[in-house]
Amino acid sequence: MPAPLPPGSTLGILGGGQLGRMLSQAASRLGFNVVILDPEENSPAARVSQGQIVAAYDDATALGVLGRTCQAVTFEFENVPAASVERLAAGGALVAPGSKALAVAQDRLEEKTFLNGVGATTVDFAPVDSLDDLLAGLERLGAPAVLKTRREGYDGKGQIWVRSADMAADAWSAIGQRPAILEAKAPFLRELSIIAARGRDGSLAVYPLGENIHAGGVLKTTLAPAEVDARTTARAYAIAEAILQGLDYVGVLGVELFDLGDGRLLVNEIAPRVHNTGHWTQDGCVCDQFEQHIRAVAGWPLGPTAAHARVEMTNLLGDEVEGWRELGGEPAARLHLYGKAEARPGRKMGHVNRVRSL
Amino acid sequence: MPAPLPPGSTLGILGGGQLGRMLSQAASRLGFNVVILDPEENSPAARVSQGQIVAAYDDATALGVLGRTCQAVTFEFENVPAASVERLAAGGALVAPGSKALAVAQDRLEEKTFLNGVGATTVDFAPVDSLDDLLAGLERLGAPAVLKTRREGYDGKGQIWVRSADMAADAWSAIGQRPAILEAKAPFLRELSIIAARGRDGSLAVYPLGENIHAGGVLKTTLAPAEVDARTTARAYAIAEAILQGLDYVGVLGVELFDLGDGRLLVNEIAPRVHNTGHWTQDGCVCDQFEQHIRAVAGWPLGPTAAHARVEMTNLLGDEVEGWRELGGEPAARLHLYGKAEARPGRKMGHVNRVRSL
Repeated sequence: MPAPLPPGSTLGILGGGQLGRMLSQAASRLGFNVVILDPEENSPAARVSQGQIVAAYDDATALGVLGRTCQAVTFEFENVPAASVERLAAGGALVAPGSKALAVAQDRLEEKTFLNGVGATTVDFAPVDSLDDLLAGLERLGAPAVLKTRREGYDGKGQIWVRSADMAADAWSAIGQRPAILEAKAPFLRELSIIAARGRDGSLAVYPLGENIHAGGVLKTTLAPAEVDARTTARAYAIAEAILQGLDYVGVLGVELFDLGDGRLLVNEIAPRVHNTGHWTQDGCVCDQFEQHIRAVAGWPLGPTAAHARVEMTNLLGDEVEGWRELGGEPAARLHLYGKAEARPGRKMGHVNRVRSL
Repeated sequence: MPAPLPPGSTLGILGGGQLGRMLSQAASRLGFNVVILDPEENSPAARVSQGQIVAAYDDATALGVLGRTCQAVTFEFENVPAASVERLAAGGALVAPGSKALAVAQDRLEEKTFLNGVGATTVDFAPVDSLDDLLAGLERLGAPAVLKTRREGYDGKGQIWVRSADMAADAWSAIGQRPAILEAKAPFLRELSIIAARGRDGSLAVYPLGENIHAGGVLKTTLAPAEVDARTTARAYAIAEAILQGLDYVGVLGVELFDLGDGRLLVNEIAPRVHNTGHWTQDGCVCDQFEQHIRAVAGWPLGPTAAHARVEMTNLLGDEVEGWRELGGEPAARLHLYGKAEARPGRKMGHVNRVRSL
């Protein structure tokens, strides 16, 4: 195992959005220098980092430079091309999380197959490569079911509910007749999520569960630590650990869970990165998910995960960020703004952590 | 009163050291862009900021650019030339804290005179402009007494203890025969400090007291909230408020206090900026001193100052920073490293906040 990277080392981050920004801030706090690779000039993360390389994520020259400049590289999003990871590693940088996590997270069918393989149950599903597959899947799983492209969907994009066999052809067209997966509807009471980390030495660190409330397919609020019984907590921790071990993972990973209300938890999806439902840790824990991820990537010991406060994290979407004036005057509200210039509808502009004692 | 600056505004900071760095990080969290002015390329603060201007603090062109680029400007150190503040203001930027605070903080005689004028008692003192003044001062105040240059001393530099009249001539030479002040020895039990803020609207926010332990003239540890009785707390708050009002101050200010143990508090010195003894607030309060300062400078409402944890802040001086490996593995320790390349003896390289529940 490589030695922990000393402060003063340079870390690279692929992706200059808010997750890259908060990762960079955490890395700086630990004395690391940070270089961002992002196609956009002056990205939110680049503005708080020592360096930026403006290039596409598959630009071989840029990746070579980043790999030679940085002692370790990580990413803020899971759709990094596998070839890019190889180029970074060839430049000499440690890259984490690794290629197995990316391969699994980039393909919903691979993901569900992997999850069930490590005992992390999901909803029933069927691979869909044709309209016939879709009809057969609907027959087996029942309607309504949700049809999702296998690759490149997030925040509700690239997916459609199929409410009856009559809708199948339209749904198949709507997602572009691309390789897909059909998922049964989960009869869940609520969505929980768990943020967990694994270090280079295989050590594990798991945060208390959060309860998530979505609106329009986008996360609105996370309440954490969530009110859950001991059995649910134990089950969620076991799921997180099975996933981290199964992926030989290094870094922070987010797991979305359906709580069926009868003690059963199904994994909805995993994100091999820091996760929006873990933003509460910034103001609820001594070591937040961003620092935790940097610690793992740099080969440091993982930090503590106990909550010292109860936090309600609320995303500020689009022009909700205009509420900064009121939020800035709210005593228990800690504001985290991402520095994005344009408040397009639904765009994540910031979040607010409302902090209460446990 | 100017309207609060919206997120997306640009703030300037004079000084690229650790205080500028942590101010910049706090400003970014509120969605501001930050430009650093510092003579040193790639300073600790510049590495976490959008822009940097590498120039002397009295460079007229650089100050003009900064004043036109930024909607507000502040500083991490008090020895900013008054002419620089005027140039920044001429560029169109709000500058805070204001020139009165700087004038008072730059001259120990002005400072003590001001403090006593607002009812914030100090040790007895005598102005010293000659060896005769020094001898007369020693006669009146008694030996030992401490001789300090009026201007440009910090962390024990530019000062010398005079233990008897025999030492007077040597002491007067040692400080370069510069305009000075002789201060009586305070019979104090301990040093406390208080971090307080005043907003553009005149509102006040005062943090719980810290207790400070020095070594070799440099702060080693702050314990906060300090164990103090209600009378001492009330007295310290009153002192902080009198100073903030008296200076028509905008921003965070640090006040070092001698606790005489009989209910009396003497002001040792004030710092018109965020202060090393306030670093504990980063992990003990929802709104730390850095965010508080940015809020004040930007005209935002001040944030809450209640402590949610007890914190022991310890400076990492010189090669103590090499302890990052052990500190990184200490569960309740939150590490803040400044990214300085060279760990010269005594140099402030970082600090660690050890967090306990209240």
